[in-house]
Amino acid sequence: MQNPFHQHLDELNELLVDMARRVADAIERASAALLEGDTAAAEAVVAEDQHVNALQFRVDDRIIELMTQYDAVASDLRFVLGAVRISVDLERMGDLAKHVAKSVLLRAPAAVIPDSLRPDFAAMGAAAGRVAEKLVVVLEDQDQLLATQMGLDDDELDAIQERIHAQLPGLGYGPQTAGDVALLARFFERFGDHAVRISHQVVYAVTGDVHLDRS
Amino acid sequence: MQNPFHQHLDELNELLVDMARRVADAIERASAALLEGDTAAAEAVVAEDQHVNALQFRVDDRIIELMTQYDAVASDLRFVLGAVRISVDLERMGDLAKHVAKSVLLRAPAAVIPDSLRPDFAAMGAAAGRVAEKLVVVLEDQDQLLATQMGLDDDELDAIQERIHAQLPGLGYGPQTAGDVALLARFFERFGDHAVRISHQVVYAVTGDVHLDRS
Repeated sequence: MQNPFHQHLDELNELLVDMARRVADAIERASAALLEGDTAAAEAVVAEDQHVNALQFRVDDRIIELMTQYDAVASDLRFVLGAVRISVDLERMGDLAKHVAKSVLLRAPAAVIPDSLRPDFAAMGAAAGRVAEKLVVVLEDQDQLLATQMGLDDDELDAIQERIHAQLPGLGYGPQTAGDVALLARFFERFGDHAVRISHQVVYAVTGDVHLDRS
Repeated sequence: MQNPFHQHLDELNELLVDMARRVADAIERASAALLEGDTAAAEAVVAEDQHVNALQFRVDDRIIELMTQYDAVASDLRFVLGAVRISVDLERMGDLAKHVAKSVLLRAPAAVIPDSLRPDFAAMGAAAGRVAEKLVVVLEDQDQLLATQMGLDDDELDAIQERIHAQLPGLGYGPQTAGDVALLARFFERFGDHAVRISHQVVYAVTGDVHLDRS
């Protein structure tokens, strides 16, 4: 990629990488805040989500600039449309990290998750963090191989969610705790879904292969 | 809108209207299936979501066709980017209707929602149906006024969700029911959020005003 148009595409991709880095940071800190009941960390995650949102606007502006300056061919347009979709998914991943953080603030000083589910939520947080870190690399290097493997990490998140749901009826939690647990498990599971969508989008943008997961 | 480019934009918008109609149909039938425990209706909602997904691919193809054939000005590009974002939100609304339908199938022949919450979920379903029907008009007529009012309907969905959550601790449900109720209320609430985002996008595409809700 050397010509001015492709240089601009690289800059567009840099914005997506920046979003992904902030999202990775947010989910890691939100997961830690959830396990430790750390309200200061949770507040920071909530406050910093605005930077992710702001980057989404910059993606749009950059695309409009690009498209008005250059005649793009279909393959480049596919990349540009992919960037729009990816920015939507990244923004949503930021929201989900924020939702985890907000649940900490909502129930503080009580813990949101019961002790018996701490290991499962620790595993959820670790898996979501791994997914987010890999996503940074997928976007930064347009790494096709890593992108196609993202489904495996997402399977892990799905499996932990299933495990949590399967335990719910037998653990004797009150309805509020059960509701919180069901929603929190879903936030992490959705976080993984968006990473998979983005990974498919990266493969699609480069190869034109339709693996887009729109289940 | 008379020139060939704008005629193509109209056709692009028709695809979005078609998506919105199918989504409205899906949420209305999913809500009815939820209240009546109608598994045949729920299965139909699940099966027909693929048509919504297929339309999203057609939106992308149409946009790439458009952009390779014409030099668009910034205001048109804003509309085109808006169409991408709107198709993402509509596809997600279709998924949420499908999630409601799937929850019916998961717990059948038992009811997913307890009798005491039937009135609240009936209200949720009615409000979501209204939101979806209005959204068809917003997209079809690019109706700015109706678009700016969408937030009020969404407020109603939020309020019902709050009411359900507030009742949860006192109603003595088992954890599985509480988890199901929390997730179902969230599906409807998210359905409304996406309608608001789309409405803001319509206003933005026409006026350039940034009211985009990326909370």
